[in-house]
Amino acid sequence: MAAGPACADTALQGQNARQERGEKTLANITGGAGKQVVDSLRDIAPDLGDWIINFAYGEVFSRPGLSLCTRELTTISALTALGNAQPQLKVHIDGALNVGCKPEEIVEVILQMAVYAGFPSALNGIGAAREVFAKRGIKIAARTDPAVPPQETR
Amino acid sequence: MAAGPACADTALQGQNARQERGEKTLANITGGAGKQVVDSLRDIAPDLGDWIINFAYGEVFSRPGLSLCTRELTTISALTALGNAQPQLKVHIDGALNVGCKPEEIVEVILQMAVYAGFPSALNGIGAAREVFAKRGIKIAARTDPAVPPQETR
Amino acid sequence: MAAGPACADTALQGQNARQERGEKTLANITGGAGKQVVDSLRDIAPDLGDWIINFAYGEVFSRPGLSLCTRELTTISALTALGNAQPQLKVHIDGALNVGCKPEEIVEVILQMAVYAGFPSALNGIGAAREVFAKRGIKIAARTDPAVPPQETR
Amino acid sequence: MAAGPACADTALQGQNARQERGEKTLANITGGAGKQVVDSLRDIAPDLGDWIINFAYGEVFSRPGLSLCTRELTTISALTALGNAQPQLKVHIDGALNVGCKPEEIVEVILQMAVYAGFPSALNGIGAAREVFAKRGIKIAARTDPAVPPQETR
Amino acid sequence: MAAGPACADTALQGQNARQERGEKTLANITGGAGKQVVDSLRDIAPDLGDWIINFAYGEVFSRPGLSLCTRELTTISALTALGNAQPQLKVHIDGALNVGCKPEEIVEVILQMAVYAGFPSALNGIGAAREVFAKRGIKIAARTDPAVPPQETR
Amino acid sequence: MAAGPACADTALQGQNARQERGEKTLANITGGAGKQVVDSLRDIAPDLGDWIINFAYGEVFSRPGLSLCTRELTTISALTALGNAQPQLKVHIDGALNVGCKPEEIVEVILQMAVYAGFPSALNGIGAAREVFAKRGIKIAARTDPAVPPQETR
Repeated sequence: MAAGPACADTALQGQNARQERGEKTLANITGGAGKQVVDSLRDIAPDLGDWIINFAYGEVFSRPGLSLCTRELTTISALTALGNAQPQLKVHIDGALNVGCKPEEIVEVILQMAVYAGFPSALNGIGAAREVFAKRGIKIAARTDPAVPPQETR
Repeated sequence: MAAGPACADTALQGQNARQERGEKTLANITGGAGKQVVDSLRDIAPDLGDWIINFAYGEVFSRPGLSLCTRELTTISALTALGNAQPQLKVHIDGALNVGCKPEEIVEVILQMAVYAGFPSALNGIGAAREVFAKRGIKIAARTDPAVPPQETR
Repeated sequence: MAAGPACADTALQGQNARQERGEKTLANITGGAGKQVVDSLRDIAPDLGDWIINFAYGEVFSRPGLSLCTRELTTISALTALGNAQPQLKVHIDGALNVGCKPEEIVEVILQMAVYAGFPSALNGIGAAREVFAKRGIKIAARTDPAVPPQETR
Repeated sequence: MAAGPACADTALQGQNARQERGEKTLANITGGAGKQVVDSLRDIAPDLGDWIINFAYGEVFSRPGLSLCTRELTTISALTALGNAQPQLKVHIDGALNVGCKPEEIVEVILQMAVYAGFPSALNGIGAAREVFAKRGIKIAARTDPAVPPQETR
Repeated sequence: MAAGPACADTALQGQNARQERGEKTLANITGGAGKQVVDSLRDIAPDLGDWIINFAYGEVFSRPGLSLCTRELTTISALTALGNAQPQLKVHIDGALNVGCKPEEIVEVILQMAVYAGFPSALNGIGAAREVFAKRGIKIAARTDPAVPPQETR
Repeated sequence: MAAGPACADTALQGQNARQERGEKTLANITGGAGKQVVDSLRDIAPDLGDWIINFAYGEVFSRPGLSLCTRELTTISALTALGNAQPQLKVHIDGALNVGCKPEEIVEVILQMAVYAGFPSALNGIGAAREVFAKRGIKIAARTDPAVPPQETR
């Protein structure tokens, strides 16, 4: 039962597998932004950075059962509703785009929060989306004639 | 410019179209539960009932651009994160099932809220799901051997 | 500078004045319900009871500058929006009625929260109002014909 | 039952009536600020702008039953309590002044939130009021002698 | 590099170490209650149960740097302030007592939330404490003479 | 029963005692920052400033039964969890250091909020701590080798 050096490596590999899966998922979703957040924690709260990689991305976000786009959209709705985490909301709007969600889908999810968390939450969520879209040069197809009542144009 | 009786009907039809669309979407999503909520408002706040039908369901939830399942999942994540609207969370867990989301997807979305809104929110969200699933006789395929670390079984 | 017994009484009177003002305002607003809450704290957190009387009601709610009805309506909107304090929301819906707010005004304020805090908050606020109104035998004048679109009936 | 062109106009008029009522109420309350918010949404989420005009202002805020000042004060208390919508809080502090609320009433409502949502919420609400008041050159009559205990000066 | 069966055991041991540490800390803090929550998740969300043991208790709560009592008191203040997780608040009031916090300290922490999250949060927090204390037969030493102003009795 | 001038002084002394206690506790905890907040309220909401001194610090924070460090740590966890009061969170991180809490303890409390309020709350709490620590030239002992899994280094 006494494990030799090769086994110590194996134990490390077990941990590393989770870490590698987390790092890969983090990179898939956030590009470099998530890594940057994790790195910025190294001098003050490195374990929080580890938990982000190993737990949040290595365990939760790497799970099968939902597409990464659906994971991102449900994160966006929650952060829009809570309204107290604008930096993270922007990271996940960016992340949603990185994993293939369409800008229009992101806007839809935020709009829907007007019903569930109120108009101020939706407005501030759209503000976050506007910043991220501008940085990426994304333009949403605007309604051609804003004077026409909305239900007619859909 | 003076509109005759036929036109008054038309104006009503415009309003009725929105209302009918709302009632249909409400029924699609909530079965009878949403209608029951709206009806219960008739003696105290009938306009809130109208807004639910005409605005929330007739305008917002009837929009194209997202599947009804994605709309329900993003609602579930938001209500789980806010944690102050258990009755509505149950209605939408039920609603998600009604529009074809799988129970496992609902659980995934709620679990993910452990990361974004904390473990108590996730636990209370699971409590809501358990109630709805029990009422419908839904059983989630449990892990066969809980002693095995989770990453091995997926 | 050494104060005699009469002065000790005076100091007590100063404190008592605040306390009496608080008790009177608490009684004006909540009838016996607030006193009951304060009394129920006597065996576990008597100082919280004192703060409710001396600070919340003796200092804040006794201030001039707003009518008691406006104070109650702004409390109702805040508690409806927060959505995590149903018992207190009911106390203040009751309190608003005690100080002369009309039931219809209370409903209006709660409805408005659909815009600022989302429909679930408004729905749960109406649920609280329904309970309080029922206990007091209050009936809101219902719309005569719910089939007619709301904007026509106002 | 087939409606002619005149009737199509009428249907549009029905929609337009709500829209015009909303635009007028929005202008009454927010001056140009609300319109500016709505316009800023045109290129990313025009429907949210429509909902603000047609639903939030055309349906909810245009209702009889509460003065516009009371509507604004109850909005201010809710947004102060939630604490996650500073831009909207400022718009409504400004709006309260536009519809005739007194600066002192606005301050009273925010102060009261110290009791219902805690001192940080009240402090940040006062910070929002300070900004709006400064922009409009409003000065609150300060207490003449801050060394005197507050209950003596009232 | 290919690890033999003994090594697979070792990898499992690594995982098991975290799990055992989590189970032990969970038992120390919650007695049987936490285990009961985890077990109740087995049929619907077993991974959430694993995360509670392995992450929340095995990684976070098992860290050195804070006494378990301080960890519990800071959890109690947070859950009291959020106000949307009464079941978990009760578990941690119980947990605080299990790890040696005094009932009076728990009450102090909850009272303090009147300042930071408002009186309703403090009141509902005290309600949770009252339930837990009653179940355990704990009595707080009440003030002998409630008529005397509080500052005189301390 | 008519109190003479000496007694008026006594009554003032009673009030002043509470005020002095509050001012002293405020200074102990916040250094000059709390006084600066209170002074900044003099021209818009002087009574809020008085309440901070007389109630929040003179009554609540001056109570025996908890060390000032524990009071500050429980305040930090609550404000981190609420996530809507960053300026006050920074004041209390600073305050915790002023009353002798260790930087590592503050970080521990914030990290723990990842479990109870979600990772975004913890991340933004750490952001507040980083600012305060930087202003005071505080460095946390970083982990020597971030590549090693966290559980090995503790």
